[in-house]
Amino acid sequence: MNTRQLQKKFQGLRSNKAFELFVVGVILFSAVVVGAKTYDLPPIMITALSWLDSFITIIFLVELTIRFIGEEQKKHFFKDPWNIFDTIIVIASLIPVEESDMAFVGRLLRIFRVLRMISIIPELRVLLNSLLKALPQLGYVMLLMFIIFYIYAAIGSTLFSEINPELWGDISISLLTLFRVMTFEDWTDVMYETMTVYGLSWIYYLTFIFLTAFAFLNMVIGIVVSVIEKENAIEDAEHNTEPSLSELQQEIKELKGMIQSLNVNAEGKS
Amino acid sequence: MNTRQLQKKFQGLRSNKAFELFVVGVILFSAVVVGAKTYDLPPIMITALSWLDSFITIIFLVELTIRFIGEEQKKHFFKDPWNIFDTIIVIASLIPVEESDMAFVGRLLRIFRVLRMISIIPELRVLLNSLLKALPQLGYVMLLMFIIFYIYAAIGSTLFSEINPELWGDISISLLTLFRVMTFEDWTDVMYETMTVYGLSWIYYLTFIFLTAFAFLNMVIGIVVSVIEKENAIEDAEHNTEPSLSELQQEIKELKGMIQSLNVNAEGKS
Amino acid sequence: MNTRQLQKKFQGLRSNKAFELFVVGVILFSAVVVGAKTYDLPPIMITALSWLDSFITIIFLVELTIRFIGEEQKKHFFKDPWNIFDTIIVIASLIPVEESDMAFVGRLLRIFRVLRMISIIPELRVLLNSLLKALPQLGYVMLLMFIIFYIYAAIGSTLFSEINPELWGDISISLLTLFRVMTFEDWTDVMYETMTVYGLSWIYYLTFIFLTAFAFLNMVIGIVVSVIEKENAIEDAEHNTEPSLSELQQEIKELKGMIQSLNVNAEGKS
Amino acid sequence: MNTRQLQKKFQGLRSNKAFELFVVGVILFSAVVVGAKTYDLPPIMITALSWLDSFITIIFLVELTIRFIGEEQKKHFFKDPWNIFDTIIVIASLIPVEESDMAFVGRLLRIFRVLRMISIIPELRVLLNSLLKALPQLGYVMLLMFIIFYIYAAIGSTLFSEINPELWGDISISLLTLFRVMTFEDWTDVMYETMTVYGLSWIYYLTFIFLTAFAFLNMVIGIVVSVIEKENAIEDAEHNTEPSLSELQQEIKELKGMIQSLNVNAEGKS
Repeated sequence: MNTRQLQKKFQGLRSNKAFELFVVGVILFSAVVVGAKTYDLPPIMITALSWLDSFITIIFLVELTIRFIGEEQKKHFFKDPWNIFDTIIVIASLIPVEESDMAFVGRLLRIFRVLRMISIIPELRVLLNSLLKALPQLGYVMLLMFIIFYIYAAIGSTLFSEINPELWGDISISLLTLFRVMTFEDWTDVMYETMTVYGLSWIYYLTFIFLTAFAFLNMVIGIVVSVIEKENAIEDAEHNTEPSLSELQQEIKELKGMIQSLNVNAEGKS
Repeated sequence: MNTRQLQKKFQGLRSNKAFELFVVGVILFSAVVVGAKTYDLPPIMITALSWLDSFITIIFLVELTIRFIGEEQKKHFFKDPWNIFDTIIVIASLIPVEESDMAFVGRLLRIFRVLRMISIIPELRVLLNSLLKALPQLGYVMLLMFIIFYIYAAIGSTLFSEINPELWGDISISLLTLFRVMTFEDWTDVMYETMTVYGLSWIYYLTFIFLTAFAFLNMVIGIVVSVIEKENAIEDAEHNTEPSLSELQQEIKELKGMIQSLNVNAEGKS
Repeated sequence: MNTRQLQKKFQGLRSNKAFELFVVGVILFSAVVVGAKTYDLPPIMITALSWLDSFITIIFLVELTIRFIGEEQKKHFFKDPWNIFDTIIVIASLIPVEESDMAFVGRLLRIFRVLRMISIIPELRVLLNSLLKALPQLGYVMLLMFIIFYIYAAIGSTLFSEINPELWGDISISLLTLFRVMTFEDWTDVMYETMTVYGLSWIYYLTFIFLTAFAFLNMVIGIVVSVIEKENAIEDAEHNTEPSLSELQQEIKELKGMIQSLNVNAEGKS
Repeated sequence: MNTRQLQKKFQGLRSNKAFELFVVGVILFSAVVVGAKTYDLPPIMITALSWLDSFITIIFLVELTIRFIGEEQKKHFFKDPWNIFDTIIVIASLIPVEESDMAFVGRLLRIFRVLRMISIIPELRVLLNSLLKALPQLGYVMLLMFIIFYIYAAIGSTLFSEINPELWGDISISLLTLFRVMTFEDWTDVMYETMTVYGLSWIYYLTFIFLTAFAFLNMVIGIVVSVIEKENAIEDAEHNTEPSLSELQQEIKELKGMIQSLNVNAEGKS
């Protein structure tokens, strides 16, 4: 069997539904293995799990090879970021990690294998792409929100650092504390503490909550409106078999021309 | 009176508004009985309540029999999942439960009788069906969210299990802890604890919050858009007495043809 | 001056902008008086405030009398629920309250005078009416939500009443505890307590949170959609100066008839 | 070089992209300096930072001068509120602050320099303006919400001031406590405390939560609807190249007139 035939065969295998389901099954199984490792297990189980791990790595390697050979144009394979992600995960899994500090990286890699679920199931890939497309629209609102956070954090760490250095020690800790206030997590404890020194510091917290809540609200509405608009645009595009009003107007104008000539004709005769 | 006449009579009873109201009344009363049992009561009251319980069971049995006989085609009766639900609840209530471990199941059955409110009131049934229909649309977003949860739980139980085994001991406890973080319930306590060991672990919590909040937002918007679209589709369907633009275009074309023939006619003559 | 003239004059006064502003001013002042009473004040201030109180009551009485006399048809006056509300508040303020248990009712009445702001400012009245109109639409969703709450409260007080009677003692306390869980307020404390006895009780809390969150989401979306629909309906009604497509179709049909007769005419001649 | 030429040159500099980027860079750098000051630093660093501060002030002064001279009509310069804001910030930075109580104002001024980011980046300015435009629409809902808050605060401080003066002492503290309840922050602690004295006080909290949540919901929906409407209006305006239905009707009417005259002509001849 020559390379061409092999490629054709593997191409068929790639789009095979049973093959996709098998790979999803292996990914799910690798997720269970990752989960199982977090429990306290007897030594024999740990050995079994490490064997299963190697087994999963080999299946992934075979699957990736099939997908790579099945690709007609090798250049296109690495243009898809998901293929690059898959390749990195699989190749990195092959490197043996024994030392204690590398062992953690190895465990992390095995956890990220669960993400391959997204690269395999097309619906999830579409969903994630649409989420990512929505991000840039939010860019300026997020910048505005960061400016609000930064100014409040600067004021907070200037005024309150003496009161509670653990919450307001420097600007980075203050940013974290303000994020906590935005999530309403025990924010009154933070406020009551500073109010014992600065009686009017409730103004600081309330204006901050209003500003961030208002900016957040606008962000949400921004997405809603842009999504609805896109849907409408798609719907409009689907209905474009209907003639436009200007086309109708054009036809009526032609009618007029025809009657005009008829009229001229009739008058010419009389 | 033969079976046919009995069926006709019961069919009339089923669609009778007064009968429906009476059954709703009995269900409400059974709900009150269920509620009353949770209070500390004198023995005489407990006996009275158990008598009332049997009484309600008998009424439900009679009502179900009437509805079954009133059904013209017996096969259709069990095609409605709500009828199956009613039958199970009523029949299970008939089984005497004396032993202590079965007593709990018996109590639970009596509580679920309140759910019969949904099977009796048509508006609630419609509402619930529409809620259930919205669920599958969310399927993939929920799968994506579970993948995010699973990966963070695996990382969390790998890194933090030594710090607080009660929160991060294994992957299932970690999933619960992450759900807690997503609801912002004392999430800073969880974070501050791990930050004493891993100073940068705030990155873990903040990225998790952003990812889940963003995915949740998209889920909500997904429902809003699909609901609005459906409403629009229904509205469009209602207004379809209006001629379409293509129909108008067709009529104008016919006009042109008529004038053309008129023109030919006139020219022919001259 | 006869009654007719007086009525005319008072009618003019009612719709006078300066008069409205003066009454809003008095209401605001009465709100400040209500607020001032909550502070610890020297005896002289308390006496002054009670004098001011009587003064405000008199102004309100005069204002109400003017509005009543200014009404052309006395019957219509009490058809507006806001007028009834105003009358009750003003008349009840006239009754002297000296005894300690009635004193509280008197204070409450004076607080409710702030609500007169809504009855005076037309925009607020419109806003509140639109809020009230949205309520019935939510009726069935709220009934469904109450059924969910009731079933979970019944299960909760059956299972957990021994563990913490203060939270799960009977069904009414359980309902309050579940409302607390729905607002995510220290819900994990409630859960961890019952998980020490029933390890799987997290299922109870998580399903409850999902069900109520989902029902709530649907409620919100229901309002959004109905509001948007109403807005669209209003907009459509505004644009109804445009001819409909069926009107255009009718006109084209008439055109055809005219050409037909022209054709017949022409053919008849030849 | 005369003033006219200088103005032209500076006008070019103002709209220069590189100049804008440079100013953004200086603002970002001033933000970093503001942040750095919140850390504990060795004396040499503090001196360096104060030098940098003066340096930034000078750059800002130069930049503002360029922008002022570059403005063709000097009057227009101070019509833009952002220019006024910039001028105040820059001029106030020039005043030396040595005394301890003025030092704080000086630090605050340096923090507010980060806000210049908004005045420099046009997209942020547009975003903020659109946020500010949405505010007045919410005016009446906010007034309604404040009335709800005020009435509940008055009732709260009347009933509960004896139970916990720190939470319900007077009307202003009660307002803050109610805001805390609205954010669900440990609201059950507040409620359980008053429930030991007034067993039914849960009614107070639950009605308050429902009223404010409902009003808030309406506020959000109000913005969503108005934003979507505006978007639709803009979209409609973009598509106005299409003829309207009434224009089409007019043309069909003209057609009829032409055929009529044709008919009359034909009949006249016969």
